[in-house]
This record gives sequence, structure tokens and C-alpha cells, in this order.
Amino acid sequence: MAELNRLPGVGPRSAERLALHLIQADSVVSKRLAEVLVGSRQQIIECNECGGLTEKSPCAICSNPARDERLICVVERAVDILNVEKSGAFRGKYHVLGGKISPVNGVGPEELRLNELDRRLDNGEVNEVIIALGTDVEGDATSHYLAKRLAKLDVEVSRIAHGLPAGSGLEFADELTLSQALEGRRELEVK
Amino acid sequence: MAELNRLPGVGPRSAERLALHLIQADSVVSKRLAEVLVGSRQQIIECNECGGLTEKSPCAICSNPARDERLICVVERAVDILNVEKSGAFRGKYHVLGGKISPVNGVGPEELRLNELDRRLDNGEVNEVIIALGTDVEGDATSHYLAKRLAKLDVEVSRIAHGLPAGSGLEFADELTLSQALEGRRELEVK
Repeated sequence: MAELNRLPGVGPRSAERLALHLIQADSVVSKRLAEVLVGSRQQIIECNECGGLTEKSPCAICSNPARDERLICVVERAVDILNVEKSGAFRGKYHVLGGKISPVNGVGPEELRLNELDRRLDNGEVNEVIIALGTDVEGDATSHYLAKRLAKLDVEVSRIAHGLPAGSGLEFADELTLSQALEGRRELEVK
Repeated sequence: MAELNRLPGVGPRSAERLALHLIQADSVVSKRLAEVLVGSRQQIIECNECGGLTEKSPCAICSNPARDERLICVVERAVDILNVEKSGAFRGKYHVLGGKISPVNGVGPEELRLNELDRRLDNGEVNEVIIALGTDVEGDATSHYLAKRLAKLDVEVSRIAHGLPAGSGLEFADELTLSQALEGRRELEVK
């Protein structure tokens, strides 16, 4: 129970339930789970290119010739790749920063995978870097740092839109979201 | 209790609590509330210009010379004006449509305050119409209808941005929001 309780999102009650389940179930259940845990931890590595999680490097996205090499989407963590992939709206490649600049938490630019990004931009094949970081203070700071750092290169730097989430009304939006949605308004074209 | 129960958001339990409170409180309390209810209902009217709620028409925003006449923000309901005002990001004037086009609910363009909008655009002083409708299907349909209707006029038509709400991370965004945020990405300028 104490060991299960250490996992994120598993409180004392859940730990108790899980422990009782595992003890009462067939011994095969515990054994299989243990094998998967150890095996996955060993097999899953960081992709040398993008920094995402993969079983072999370069990962399936980096080595896929159908993905657009000219677009790089910069995300904070490896798990964010899954989120963007689920949206199905992006057909380029990814780059995991591994964090956001946060002086309060002692995270500076040197802690992030920035040299790796520079290296990927070196060959001049990338047209656009899309920054897909969160919309909090650290996300803003990191985006501005990145834009400044990449300004000298011949690459467009853009950031995903801030505004009203899909299917939402004005009454559910906070003041900051509304002011960003107004500021980022886009011209409507008639087809 | 039955009468209070008819109000939005007041269930049987709340109605009971409110009723008991009013009956047990000083009789002045009930009387004052009754007067405010009747008085407000009589005094608050619709602004002839924008369609917002006001005590005298034109309303405080329409008659304020400090507000930019060249910008009109189109909202669905009068209460949306309060939401946009709270954000402090808009210094133009408003126009309340009074609804959204919704064939399912039998709301067509003729039910909305569109002729009133046309009249306000007639003098050619308005440069931009900002559509601040919700991001649901009806909001999309109404925005496109408006853009088409206003296309022949010499006025820019824009819509507030769709994307990640303020202070949010990628893990909290649904697929549609993320795909709209990617699609609506903006170039980052270095100052």
C-alpha cells in the first residue's frame, strides 16, 4: 500500500483498494504487471531528434517521411505531443523543450533542449517554428525568449492562438481570455 | 415557495430557505425587495442604438463620446456586454443581436437585430465590426452569415480568436480547441 500510495493520483484509499485487488487476484496478474512495469521503463527512451518518448530513436514521427519537415511544433513535455496528435491538426514534426523558463523554480534556458533545437534548424530546411506552450506566465516568457533567440535565423516563429475554447460562450470566459480573444481577432473571409 | 421556485437556479430547497428567511425577517425586507423588483422591471429598457439594457436610451456606452465610434462589437445577448466590459479590452461600441441563427430552434436572420445593425453602418463611419459570439455551431453559422451580409459594405469584419484560454496548458484543451489554436496561430514579433 505504501508503495502504491507514492504514485501520482493514488491516495491512501485507492492504494488500499489496489493492494487488496492485487493480493486477492491470481498471482499471474501481479507478475504480468511487474514485468510490464520493468520492461516499459527499460524499453522506452527519449528520441534523439525531438525528445519525445519512443521505443527506438529516431521516433515514429521523426522518421516518418510523410510528415512535413518544414514545420516544427515546440512543446513543453513529451506528453504534449500526444495531445497535439489527438487533435489531428498538425502534420509536421515536434520538439520537446523539457520545461519552461521559470526563474522561481530555478529553470533557465540552459536547462531546456535549446541547443538540440538550434541543431535541427541549422540545415535551413525548417520554414516555421510553431510554439505550442501553455498560456501561463512561464509559457509567455519562454515563447518570447524563443522568438528572440530564433529571430536571427531565416525561420518564421508563430504561437498557437489564445482565445475562447471550442463550444464555449462569452459568459464562461474570464477577463484575460476575453481580452486576448479580442486582441487576437481574425478577419472573416467570405467564401 | 412555489413562486420563488420558478426563478432560474432556485430549486425546491433554496426556495424553502428563501421563503422562511423572508417570512421570519422584518416586514421591511420583503417590502423593499418587492419595490426594487417592480421598479427595476419598469425602469430598465432596451437601448434603441445597441439593444443593451439601460435606464435611459441611448445607453451610457452609446452616448459616451470617449468610446470609439468606428468599432462595433457584435454580441449575442445584452449580458455579454457586461462580460466584454469586465475584460477592459474594448473601447468601441456594442450591438446586441438578440440571439444566434439556429434552424433547430426556429431562429432565422429575421429574428435578430440585423436591420438595426445595417442602419448603424449606413453612415459609413464604422471601420470594423468585431463578432464576439460563442464558439458553438450557432455562433459559427451566425458569424458566417454576418460576414457575408456585410461583405458588400466598406467595413472590416473580424471575429474574436479561438484558442487556448488564459493560464491553461495543452493537457486541458480538447482536440477541437487545440486544432483551432494551431490553425489560428500568430506570428511572434520580437520587440
